[in-house]
Amino acid sequence: MKPYAEMTRDELAQEVRSLRAEYHRYQGMALNLNMSRGKPCLEQLDLSMGLMDALNSDADLSCEDGTDCRNYGVLDGIAEVKKLMAGMMENNPDEIIIYGNSSLNIMYDTVSRAMTHGVMGSTPWCRLDKVKFLCPVPGYDRHFSITEYFGIEMIPVPMTPTGPDMDIVESLVSSDEAIKGIWCVPKYSNPQGYSYSDDTVRRFARLKPAARDFRIFWDNAYGIHHLYDDDQDYLIEILSECRRAGNPDMVYKFASTSKITFPGSGISALATSLNNLADIRSQLKHQTIGHDKVNQLRHVRFFGDIDHMKMHMRKHAEILRPKFEAVENILEENLGGLGIGSWTKPKGGYFISFDSLPGCAREIIDMAKKAGVVMTEAGATWPYHRDPRDSNIRIAPSYPPLDDLITATRLFSLCVKLVSARKLIASIDEGH
Amino acid sequence: MKPYAEMTRDELAQEVRSLRAEYHRYQGMALNLNMSRGKPCLEQLDLSMGLMDALNSDADLSCEDGTDCRNYGVLDGIAEVKKLMAGMMENNPDEIIIYGNSSLNIMYDTVSRAMTHGVMGSTPWCRLDKVKFLCPVPGYDRHFSITEYFGIEMIPVPMTPTGPDMDIVESLVSSDEAIKGIWCVPKYSNPQGYSYSDDTVRRFARLKPAARDFRIFWDNAYGIHHLYDDDQDYLIEILSECRRAGNPDMVYKFASTSKITFPGSGISALATSLNNLADIRSQLKHQTIGHDKVNQLRHVRFFGDIDHMKMHMRKHAEILRPKFEAVENILEENLGGLGIGSWTKPKGGYFISFDSLPGCAREIIDMAKKAGVVMTEAGATWPYHRDPRDSNIRIAPSYPPLDDLITATRLFSLCVKLVSARKLIASIDEGH
Repeated sequence: MKPYAEMTRDELAQEVRSLRAEYHRYQGMALNLNMSRGKPCLEQLDLSMGLMDALNSDADLSCEDGTDCRNYGVLDGIAEVKKLMAGMMENNPDEIIIYGNSSLNIMYDTVSRAMTHGVMGSTPWCRLDKVKFLCPVPGYDRHFSITEYFGIEMIPVPMTPTGPDMDIVESLVSSDEAIKGIWCVPKYSNPQGYSYSDDTVRRFARLKPAARDFRIFWDNAYGIHHLYDDDQDYLIEILSECRRAGNPDMVYKFASTSKITFPGSGISALATSLNNLADIRSQLKHQTIGHDKVNQLRHVRFFGDIDHMKMHMRKHAEILRPKFEAVENILEENLGGLGIGSWTKPKGGYFISFDSLPGCAREIIDMAKKAGVVMTEAGATWPYHRDPRDSNIRIAPSYPPLDDLITATRLFSLCVKLVSARKLIASIDEGH
Repeated sequence: MKPYAEMTRDELAQEVRSLRAEYHRYQGMALNLNMSRGKPCLEQLDLSMGLMDALNSDADLSCEDGTDCRNYGVLDGIAEVKKLMAGMMENNPDEIIIYGNSSLNIMYDTVSRAMTHGVMGSTPWCRLDKVKFLCPVPGYDRHFSITEYFGIEMIPVPMTPTGPDMDIVESLVSSDEAIKGIWCVPKYSNPQGYSYSDDTVRRFARLKPAARDFRIFWDNAYGIHHLYDDDQDYLIEILSECRRAGNPDMVYKFASTSKITFPGSGISALATSLNNLADIRSQLKHQTIGHDKVNQLRHVRFFGDIDHMKMHMRKHAEILRPKFEAVENILEENLGGLGIGSWTKPKGGYFISFDSLPGCAREIIDMAKKAGVVMTEAGATWPYHRDPRDSNIRIAPSYPPLDDLITATRLFSLCVKLVSARKLIASIDEGH
């Protein structure tokens, strides 16, 4: 089939008629599928059932240093789990604080603490007239939700396949003291699956922020979440690179086991400089007596070491890879060469980013929903839910069973074609 | 022995010589005992080892409503655990939000949210010139630590055996709009083990705060933590009482299973009005995708229902009761009738409150420490660690084995006598 843009009005009208008939067939199927969130599927969850046997009533719940994990104490995580997470995060155990079950919660608390108490002695952000964050777009909706909740102005910065546009980032960060942070998903980014290039990471580490309390919020959510064993992205480790660049305190790095064991029942961690850690501990000691050490020990006993964790991730990849490839193949089969959409082909992470013709995303998502397929809502990948081009759609292939995913992706492709064809007809009618 | 105050200078000096010899014997024992924190002891922790078998790899990790506890979702707790905690807290399940492992963390987050976002639409506290909290004294150091961290001015209010002095509370709360909260441990209070009388609870529910965003922070930490099966304190349920009194939104109620199963690996909960819950959920959804549901399910499967939880608490009582009684008996044997100290005799909770002669607490604690017995530090039970009379000492009998506890309490009594006798001699020498 030729590109839609090269079709006549009649050809497009004929296409719409045929697509509409097909859409009605889908509506008749009473589908109820969900591609909206990066949720592991049942088979992935089953991989970690052994976690439930890692500790039982015969187990010794003591740490190597003798700490009884059942009792109070240990503010920032037991030594064994710091070591495990250090392997995962490519940091030293003493650069790490272990938190509860949610790295999102760490990020929220980190922003909240800066609002009320500043960063390493700076003016609390709530006392400033204006606080701004840079938001690479499209990006992760829950990041934007945190900064929006705290009234922080969000400035979109375009993403590229090698990371955020660093010319823009450098220029803004060095010139505006109100810019206090930037949200980053540096590896297998949400939603594109892009990984920051060496050059991007080096430029991040060498930023010269106007604000001394500027921090990079480095959400390494998918650090070991590869799809391919033989084709993985590697990143320069940002904390070391910041130190080398003379900016040792500039980055907060976040990670969790949410998509390794059980979402919501895992271990989250923050890695940063010793100065930042001291600042954070001076707050954390007021907030809690410590996070769940039994669950920390459970994870350590289940994995043993980082090598076993990486082997575990290969099993996730075997489940996820066919799903990503199915989506990519169906998109190619149905939309390839039509010039009405482009999409990413990630080597890891949880999402595929799709860009429709301008002004079509919302309608595509609505149509899919009316036929029983829920996608991430339009605009979600932009601050304030405002995608100025109304074109970005996040596809989450992980959760539905493969058959459902295939059906859902076919329907999605159909909706893309139908909405695009109508749009082009309208455009012709308007005389463009 | 007669009261120290009735002794002559010579008698006191003789007493000091004899006590000092005894103290030296203790020093020679190289003791290393800790009565500083309300930590459960090993036997108490062992009571909950069955928790580790409540879920294994053969278990169905689904809720009654079909929710897969392993995956993302359920912001405020699974239905089963709400029901369990509702039984414990004497509230309706729909009045409850389940949090992570720490009720202290809920209290911190509650204050933090009020600082940045106010309470149900009120002005964020961080924008006000002055925010004050009432602090019944002596009280819980970690409460005071939260308000101090946020720069909230703490006003001490005297505790009585029936609760805080309500004349003072009523007068301050109704006259000062800057007073936004009061810290309460209403049952088996920390450190006295006092329980608020019906009259106190009713007067709390009928407060007429000048500030519409005034909240009672009702930390019901020891709601089912009785020492005696046949002699328990009962409280009027505050949330219902506030509703009856026309103040439905005035209280936040906190609880956890930290001293029921494993400290730090339990379930915490907040109970409050539906209006407050809506306000809190509108924040919580930005902070987390949800707390650890697997651990929630683990607790539900372990206990089954509130009756089994209460039976479980009887086993705790059997371990704790002899410890409390040992401390009380030793204090009576050694200090009874001497007029140099008074102490409480709680029917539940984790602490005994001791009051020395004015100006002696710090020195008593120092002396005990130098002989190898660590007590809660002097002043800890007062805001800013400032006990104006330097007389209150919190005794935590739970953690040490009984033999150690007996030794520690004997040493403590000795230190009380020695410091008091010296004080009285100094007083005579100064001509008082």
